[in-house]
This record gives sequence, structure tokens and C-alpha cells, in this order.
Amino acid sequence: MSKKPTTPGPRDERGVLAARILDAAREAFAETGWAGTTIRAVARAADVDPALVYHYFDSKEGLLDAATNPPARWLEDVARTWTAPVDELGEALLRLMLGAWADEETGRVLRAVLQTAAHEPATREKLRRVVEGQLMGVSQLGVDDRDRKVRSGLVSSQIMGLAMMRYIWQIEPLASMGEDELVAAIAPNLQRYIDGGSR
Amino acid sequence: MSKKPTTPGPRDERGVLAARILDAAREAFAETGWAGTTIRAVARAADVDPALVYHYFDSKEGLLDAATNPPARWLEDVARTWTAPVDELGEALLRLMLGAWADEETGRVLRAVLQTAAHEPATREKLRRVVEGQLMGVSQLGVDDRDRKVRSGLVSSQIMGLAMMRYIWQIEPLASMGEDELVAAIAPNLQRYIDGGSR
Repeated sequence: MSKKPTTPGPRDERGVLAARILDAAREAFAETGWAGTTIRAVARAADVDPALVYHYFDSKEGLLDAATNPPARWLEDVARTWTAPVDELGEALLRLMLGAWADEETGRVLRAVLQTAAHEPATREKLRRVVEGQLMGVSQLGVDDRDRKVRSGLVSSQIMGLAMMRYIWQIEPLASMGEDELVAAIAPNLQRYIDGGSR
Repeated sequence: MSKKPTTPGPRDERGVLAARILDAAREAFAETGWAGTTIRAVARAADVDPALVYHYFDSKEGLLDAATNPPARWLEDVARTWTAPVDELGEALLRLMLGAWADEETGRVLRAVLQTAAHEPATREKLRRVVEGQLMGVSQLGVDDRDRKVRSGLVSSQIMGLAMMRYIWQIEPLASMGEDELVAAIAPNLQRYIDGGSR
């Protein structure tokens, strides 16, 4: 592809460069950790001047924070999915997760968050907030608030465990199983947590 | 406690010092990653000379390998648990996992492996081998080899997801739930994977 013939406006340019920097940062934080990542290396991978990284993200802390923010559109999908009929919720949540990992942008962010949260307290705290406040927080399950949190926490444990096995550690056969086979195997277990284990 | 009055023999001394180095290495690899960990920092944390770390473990690669090897006695427990009566296997595997994390030495190794596997390909590969070869490998489930691997992979996904939520990310209420409450909630789901989802 040839370059655009006209100079892009500052907002467009900023969006393109910021996205390139964030992609490089996700890769770097996930692969080499907080201590092993330098602004200089991220700038080199994104093919920009290090000063621009500081200009956009202020600090290494600011860059990590921006790189691990879940996409707003995915959080909206999560909130909408929790409004599915309760007897379809297990399958709906599982298909939402499989779709999120298949989406190029969301998948990259999820991968960076799960790879970085293992060893970065700041990202672990963010993951905790997202899981407790958004993945679990909008459900109406259970007889009281603790019961609601137990049920949605159990749902999250199965969904997160599948994500680790399939996408992060890539353990077979889970890593290459088809979506329908996974849904047939796992959705009934999610549904049992949602229904409170009474059946 | 006072120091031993007699000089320990070289084998005892080696065992004590090696264990101290491995503890420091697990902590360092888990918290600062492969790139952020130096032999010098591990030696300092273990209060030994860096030359001793090289003498015992040869290289940073050798140190990571030794630090993330699961304890033999735990692998024996895993193998023995898979011989439990098939209708008790879900609960037995879950209680095995909860006991392993409660055990000081095994818990420290498991934590280091899960925190390091996210970003270290060598540890990821080892985790894959342990899960595929030992956590999943000794079961007799299913109608054929693929079915056996699918079932034990699904069991692992739930057990690993619980471990991440409860011990690594420490997300409530799973992080502080009692063992019996967890078993009542989760063991039937493991059992459904073991039985092949036919009920």
C-alpha cells in the first residue's frame, strides 16, 4: 500500500501512532515483564521517537495502564450479555469469551492483561477490578450479594481457566478444539454455577 | 533459634543453601520476570556468593529450570489421586489441589510456575509438559485417547482457573472461601467432565 498523499490531521496521526505504541507496549510488557521493559525498546518496536511515548503516556506507569485497559466496546458486550435470559447465560458468556479472544484488538489486550497480571501488581489490581466490578458485577444471580458474587466468581474461574489453557499456555487438546465442542462441554457447567448447583 | 554447634557436612550444607537459593529465585522470577532477574540479585536475596549460584545451577537457565520443577512428592500424590474410584475423582482432584497450595513448599513452587509461565516460554513449555503428561496423563477416562485428553483437559481448566482466581489474582470471594464450600460448589462440575457430560 502507498502512503496517503495528504498529511493526516493531528488527531488521526495521534490515533495511529498511539495505537502502534500500545501494540508494542502490550507485546513488551507481556513478554519481558515490567522490569524488563523500557520506553526506549517500546519506541524502537513502534518505530517512533521515545519522546513521543512520554508525550502521549507520560511515564512507564501511564503506558502500562493504557496498554492493559480493556476496550470499552468489549465491556459493553459483557454488560449486555449478562442481560441474556438466565437459562441461556452459560452459553452466552462462553461464546462472548471465545469471540473476544478471536477479535484481533480485544484478544491482544486480553493476552497482555493475563500475561502481565501474573507478575505486575498494578495490572493484577486492574484485573481484579474488572473481574469483580464488570465481569461479575452486573449479574442479578443468587439470593443475596455474597451468593451472587460466589456464583459469578465460579463462572469466572471456569472461563479464566479455559482462557489460560487455550490461549496463554496453549495446552492441547483445548487449544485447538472447535467452539461448538467447547460450548457443548463447558456451557452446562457454567449454567450449573448460574443456577446455584441445585440440579 | 541458635546455629547448629557442629559444622554440617557438605551434603547437608549444600541442601540448605540450594533450597535458600531456589526460594529466592522463585520469588525473583515470579515478581520481576526472566529479563528482570539477575544471578547477582538472587544471590543477594539468598545471602550467598554469586559464584555459588553458578556452581550449583550452572546458568540462569539452569536456575529457572530447578526453581520451577514441581516437587516429586507432589507428582506422586497426583498419580495416586488419579487411581481414586472414578465417582469420587472430582472431589479427590480438587482436594489434592487445595492441599498442594496449602503446603508451604509445593505452594511456593506452584505460585512461581504460574506467575512465570505467563511470560517465560521455557516455563510455559514445562507447565504444558506437566499438565499434559502428569496432571492429565495418568487418567483412564473416556472412550479413546482424544476423549481422555479432552476430559482431563477440561478438569485441568477448572482447577487451573480456580488456582489463578484464588491464589494468583486473589479475587474475592473465591480467595477466602472455605475448602468445603469450594468442594460442594466445584467438585460436581469436575465430576461431570470426568463422567463425560452424559448426565
